[in-house]
Amino acid sequence: MIRVAIIGASGYTGAESIEIILRHSEAKLAYLTALPEECGAAADVFPQFKGRCKLQIEPLDLNKLAESADVALCCLPHKVSMEFVPKLLKANVKVIDFSADYRLKDPKVYEKFYSVKHTDTANLKKAVYGLPELFRSEIKGKNLIANPGCFPTAALLAITPLLKKNLIEVNPIIVNSVTGISGAGRNPSAKFHFPNMNIFPYGVGTHRHMPEMEQIAGEIAGGDVQILFQPHAGPFDRGILSTIYCQPKEKTGKEQLLKLYNDFYRNEPFVQVRKDMPAVKDVAGTNYCHISADFVKGRIVCFSAIDNLVKGASGQAIQNMNIIFDLDETIGLK
Amino acid sequence: MIRVAIIGASGYTGAESIEIILRHSEAKLAYLTALPEECGAAADVFPQFKGRCKLQIEPLDLNKLAESADVALCCLPHKVSMEFVPKLLKANVKVIDFSADYRLKDPKVYEKFYSVKHTDTANLKKAVYGLPELFRSEIKGKNLIANPGCFPTAALLAITPLLKKNLIEVNPIIVNSVTGISGAGRNPSAKFHFPNMNIFPYGVGTHRHMPEMEQIAGEIAGGDVQILFQPHAGPFDRGILSTIYCQPKEKTGKEQLLKLYNDFYRNEPFVQVRKDMPAVKDVAGTNYCHISADFVKGRIVCFSAIDNLVKGASGQAIQNMNIIFDLDETIGLK
Amino acid sequence: MIRVAIIGASGYTGAESIEIILRHSEAKLAYLTALPEECGAAADVFPQFKGRCKLQIEPLDLNKLAESADVALCCLPHKVSMEFVPKLLKANVKVIDFSADYRLKDPKVYEKFYSVKHTDTANLKKAVYGLPELFRSEIKGKNLIANPGCFPTAALLAITPLLKKNLIEVNPIIVNSVTGISGAGRNPSAKFHFPNMNIFPYGVGTHRHMPEMEQIAGEIAGGDVQILFQPHAGPFDRGILSTIYCQPKEKTGKEQLLKLYNDFYRNEPFVQVRKDMPAVKDVAGTNYCHISADFVKGRIVCFSAIDNLVKGASGQAIQNMNIIFDLDETIGLK
Amino acid sequence: MIRVAIIGASGYTGAESIEIILRHSEAKLAYLTALPEECGAAADVFPQFKGRCKLQIEPLDLNKLAESADVALCCLPHKVSMEFVPKLLKANVKVIDFSADYRLKDPKVYEKFYSVKHTDTANLKKAVYGLPELFRSEIKGKNLIANPGCFPTAALLAITPLLKKNLIEVNPIIVNSVTGISGAGRNPSAKFHFPNMNIFPYGVGTHRHMPEMEQIAGEIAGGDVQILFQPHAGPFDRGILSTIYCQPKEKTGKEQLLKLYNDFYRNEPFVQVRKDMPAVKDVAGTNYCHISADFVKGRIVCFSAIDNLVKGASGQAIQNMNIIFDLDETIGLK
Repeated sequence: MIRVAIIGASGYTGAESIEIILRHSEAKLAYLTALPEECGAAADVFPQFKGRCKLQIEPLDLNKLAESADVALCCLPHKVSMEFVPKLLKANVKVIDFSADYRLKDPKVYEKFYSVKHTDTANLKKAVYGLPELFRSEIKGKNLIANPGCFPTAALLAITPLLKKNLIEVNPIIVNSVTGISGAGRNPSAKFHFPNMNIFPYGVGTHRHMPEMEQIAGEIAGGDVQILFQPHAGPFDRGILSTIYCQPKEKTGKEQLLKLYNDFYRNEPFVQVRKDMPAVKDVAGTNYCHISADFVKGRIVCFSAIDNLVKGASGQAIQNMNIIFDLDETIGLK
Repeated sequence: MIRVAIIGASGYTGAESIEIILRHSEAKLAYLTALPEECGAAADVFPQFKGRCKLQIEPLDLNKLAESADVALCCLPHKVSMEFVPKLLKANVKVIDFSADYRLKDPKVYEKFYSVKHTDTANLKKAVYGLPELFRSEIKGKNLIANPGCFPTAALLAITPLLKKNLIEVNPIIVNSVTGISGAGRNPSAKFHFPNMNIFPYGVGTHRHMPEMEQIAGEIAGGDVQILFQPHAGPFDRGILSTIYCQPKEKTGKEQLLKLYNDFYRNEPFVQVRKDMPAVKDVAGTNYCHISADFVKGRIVCFSAIDNLVKGASGQAIQNMNIIFDLDETIGLK
Repeated sequence: MIRVAIIGASGYTGAESIEIILRHSEAKLAYLTALPEECGAAADVFPQFKGRCKLQIEPLDLNKLAESADVALCCLPHKVSMEFVPKLLKANVKVIDFSADYRLKDPKVYEKFYSVKHTDTANLKKAVYGLPELFRSEIKGKNLIANPGCFPTAALLAITPLLKKNLIEVNPIIVNSVTGISGAGRNPSAKFHFPNMNIFPYGVGTHRHMPEMEQIAGEIAGGDVQILFQPHAGPFDRGILSTIYCQPKEKTGKEQLLKLYNDFYRNEPFVQVRKDMPAVKDVAGTNYCHISADFVKGRIVCFSAIDNLVKGASGQAIQNMNIIFDLDETIGLK
Repeated sequence: MIRVAIIGASGYTGAESIEIILRHSEAKLAYLTALPEECGAAADVFPQFKGRCKLQIEPLDLNKLAESADVALCCLPHKVSMEFVPKLLKANVKVIDFSADYRLKDPKVYEKFYSVKHTDTANLKKAVYGLPELFRSEIKGKNLIANPGCFPTAALLAITPLLKKNLIEVNPIIVNSVTGISGAGRNPSAKFHFPNMNIFPYGVGTHRHMPEMEQIAGEIAGGDVQILFQPHAGPFDRGILSTIYCQPKEKTGKEQLLKLYNDFYRNEPFVQVRKDMPAVKDVAGTNYCHISADFVKGRIVCFSAIDNLVKGASGQAIQNMNIIFDLDETIGLK
C-alpha cells in the first residue's frame, strides 16, 4: 500500500483527495496536515467523512511526514508550496504539487504573474508537468510532479491534437471558459457570495493560467503560441466548460475533427470524444474529460468539459501518483 | 391610456409583459389571449399576479381585440405569428411582434433557418427592427415592429460602435453567449430538466439568431458581416452574458474602447458602459444592457449582459411601444 | 414628495429600499449613508443602479440628514440602531427601524437573546410593531416603527386569524421555515459559501425571531403563546416559506380554513389566500404574502410565503412609510 | 461475482445503480433493460458512462435475464413492477424492487393510495422491507426485498430509536421534509421546470409515503402510529432533509438524545449521529444518513439527511443485495 500524506488537507482539493484515496485499493491515507487553526478530526472539518475517515488533520511535522508517507499531495497555495517542497524531496518523499510553483519553467514569467521571486529553481528544473495524456513517459518514476491548473487541463486536452498536427494558427487561440464556484476555493468572498452569483467574467487578460497554457501549448507546437484566455464564473459547484475558437490552416469538418480526436485519444482512459456536445453535468464528480469539435464559419470550435476538483486537481494528482508508482493509472478513479 | 393586448399571454414573455404593463403609468392591459387549453384567470395561470391582475386570459377573438386594444404585443412562436399579424394590422391595431417572422428581411434566409415558407412578405417589407438604440427614428409612428431576439440584442449593442467606426474585421466576429433557462421557454424539456442542468453548449453553427445578427450587423457595417455565434445554457433563471471576440484593424486599448462606448451611448437610458465587468446579476429583472470592453492579445474582447426576458423581449417591446406612441421611452421600465 | 434617507444603505435591505423608492411616485431618495469603508456612488456599490441612481452613499452626518430627509429607513444591525434612533427622533426625523432594537417590548428578553443591554427604553415604549395587517391604525402618524423580522412576518400573517378566533392550542405552535441566502446578509461566511449550500437547519431553539413571534402572537391571542421556531437555509437567493403545524381545538377542514383566511384578509392588498399551495417563486421580488392552509391528521397545516427582502424587510418598511404619511399604502409596491 | 440485472435502467435510480455496481468489487452489471424507446448504449443514454460502461440497455427478455443474472434491481414504477416480479422470482432471480408494490402489507391501503388493485398478494406476503438498520436479519437470504421509499428511509431512521424506547407520543409525529428535484424522476414536468423552481410544498395530506412510514413505524412501536408527513421540493438536485417534531412522554435533553442515538446506531456503518446539525451537502452522493436531535419548547426535534438516490434508493438496494448474498454490507458504498 502506498502511504499518502496530504498537505493542506483542509481545502477543497484536500477533501477531494481524501475522498479518492478512501476508495483507492492500493493507497491509504497516512498523514493529513493543515494550518493549526484548520486542524481537527477530518470528520469534523469535513462532515462528509463521518464514519469514513478516522484520521486527524494535524499541523505539519516534517519528520513525522517523512516517516509515515511515501508521497505527499501538496495542496498548498503558490509561494508557500516552494518553501516546503525542497524539504519534502530531501526527506525522500515524492511530491505531487497542486500549486503553480513548479509549472512555469521560466522564473521570470512566474515572477511576473505571481508577483514573487522563485526560491527553488533547482527543483523547478526537475519538475515534470503532470498532464498524463501528454507527458506520461516523463512522469513515470519522477519525484516531483507539477500538477496542472484546472483551466489548462481542460484547454490543453482540447487543443493538443490540433497543435500536434499543425492544423491551426496560434496567434491567438481563444479559450473561453466557465468554472463553478469551488474553483475560487473554500474561503468565502464577496464576489462569489451566493446571492451575488450568476454568470460574470473575471481576470480579463490577466489570469495566471494563461502563461501556463501558453508554455505547454508552445512545447507541443514547437514554437510560440498565443492564447487569449477568458474565464467566467457560473452558479454551480463544480466543473469547467471551455469553448475554444481556432483558425484552421485549411478548411475542415466535424467528421474529420472527430476522427482526429478519436485517433489521438484512442487509448486514453479518461478522455472521451463525443459526437454530441459535452456538458459539465456528465463529468462532474469524475476524472473524465469530454471533448467535441465542429467547424463553423471558417473556425474550429472545440468544447472540453472536466470537473475542476477531480481531473482539474485531485483526480489528476492521483492519476499522476498511480503512474509514478507504476500502478494501473485508473485505480481509484473509474 | 394606451390599451394593450397580449397575444400568447401564457408564456414567459407574456407574463413579463403583463408585469411591466401593470407598472406602466400610461398604458393598461386591455385583453389577454392564449391557446384555449392555456386560458383562465391571469392570477391562476401565473399565481404571482394574485391581487394584482383581475383579467382573464381568453381564446383570441379578433373583433374583440380590435375593439379593445390600440396595440398588440404578439408573443406567438414563429410561423404562427405571420398568420395573425396581417389581420391585426388590417384591424388597425399596431403590432409589436416577438417572433422571428418579421426580423429577417430575406425570405430565403428565413425559409432556410425556420424551415417554412414566409407567407406575409408584404408586411415583412414594412416591418422595422425594434432595437431602439439603433433604429429609434424609424420605429417612431410605425405600425409593425419586429422585436429583436434576445441574443442579437445583447450582441448587437456590444458590436455596433465598433462596426460604425469600422474598427474591426468581420470575418468572423465570435459571439460566445450563455443564457438562463427561461430562454428555452415555459414548456419543460429533458434537455433543460433541473437535475440535468449545469452548463452546456447547443445549436453549434445552426442557431437561428445567427443570421439575424448578421443581417443587422451587415446593415450597420454597410457590407457583409460574418458572425460565429455559439450559445450555451447555464443553471440560472434569467439573463444572457455575451463575450465577444473581434480582430481590430489597429491596436487599441481599454481606455480608448470605453471612451468609444461612452460617447456612442451617452444619451441612451438603457445602455450602461462599465469600467469593471458586467454581471448578469446586475441586469436581471431590468431593461438595462451593461457593456464593457478590453484589448487582450491583439483582440478586442467585449462583454454584454441583459435580462433575456426584459431587454431581450418584453421590456424592449414596451420600450418600442413607448416610442411608437411618442411617450417617454423609459416609462414602466426604470 | 417625501424625502427619504437610508441609513446603512450598503447592505441588501438598503439596496432593496433604494430599488423601491426609485419606483415610488410620492417619495424620493434624499440621503444615503453607510460606514465610511462602504461608501461611494450608489451605482458603484450596487452596479444594478447604474443609470438609475446618481446619489452618493456617504458617511452619516446627522445635521445633513435632519435637513434633507423627512423619514429615515434605518437598516442598521441591532445595538447600533439604538445608538442612532434617539438622535434621529430628536432631530424630528421619522424612523422606520429594520433592526430588532425596538421590536421586543421586554428589555430582559431583548438582553437575553441579543446579549446586550437596551439603552433606549424610552423610545422602545413608544415604538409600534410595523406589521400593517395587524397594527395599521397604531402605525398611522407615528414617529418610530419597529419594522418586523422576516420570519415573524411570514409566520404571524399565517397564524393570526387562527389566534384571533381562538381556534388553536398554543403550546407550542410549530413554525418550520426555509429562507434564501440573502437572509444571512451581504457579508459572505463559510456557512453560506456557495459550494457549501444546499439545505440545512440552524439556530435550533435559539433563533432571535422566536421571542419576537411569541410576543406578537401573545398580544394577538391575549395570553402566553409558545412557538417552536425552526429555521433552515436553502440554496436560493430570496424568499421564505413557512410551514406551520397547529393543534386545533376542534376538528376543521380546508374549506373552513380558507373561508376564515379569506374573510380575515379580504381587504388586505398584500395578503393573498390560495387554494393551491404557495411557492416562494410566486412572491419573490414582490411585497405579497401568499397563504394557504389544510387539515391533516388532526392538525392544521398552514403555508406562508414571502420575499424576505421585500415583505420581510424593505417593502414592508415602505408600506409602513406610506401609512405614516397617509399615502395609498400600495404606492411603489404593486 | 454476483451478476446484476437492472430493469428500468433508463431512469435516475437505474443510472445510480449502474454507477455503484461499476465500483463494486464483488458484483458486475450483467443485463440492462428499459422500455424500447429508451434503449441504446448505456453510454449514450447516460453520457457520464462514456468509457466506463460498454453495455447496451435493451428491451427486457425474461429468458435472457434469467440466464445472465443472479439478482435484478427492479427500478420500475408501481403497478408495472408487480407484473414482472412474479416472473423474475419464478425464474430463480432474486429481486430488489424499488417500487411501492411490495412495501405496503395491507392490499387495501395499497389500493387506496395507488388507485390500483394489488395483483401479486402471494409474493407481497413474503417480501421483506429492506431497511437494513431495522430488518437486517430478515433480509438475509431472502428472494424478494421491497426497497424502501426515500422519505420513509430518512424519517424512519430518525424516529426508530424514539419509538423502540417508547419515548414519544404518536398521534401524530410531524415529518417535514424537503427533497431535491431528482426525487420527481427523469421525466420533466411543468411543476419542476427549472425557472419555476424554488421551494414549495406538495402532496398535502396525500403523499404515498405517509402510509408506508405509518406501517413500519407501527411495527416498530408495536401499535398504531399516526404520521403527519409534509413534503416540499427545493432547488437542488439530490438529497432529502427531514425535520421531525415529536411530543416526548417525559422531558429530555440534547445530550440524552444523542446518547440514545449513538447507542442505537453504534454498529451501523451508514448512520452517523451528529452533535451539530446535518446538512444535505454532507450526504449527497453517499449512502450515509446523518442524524441529530434536540429538545426545544417541550418537543423533540430530529434532523435526518440522506441522498434520495443513494440511501433513498440505489445505494440502499445494493446494501440489501450485499446482505442477501452474505457480503460485507458496505462493498461498493463506502
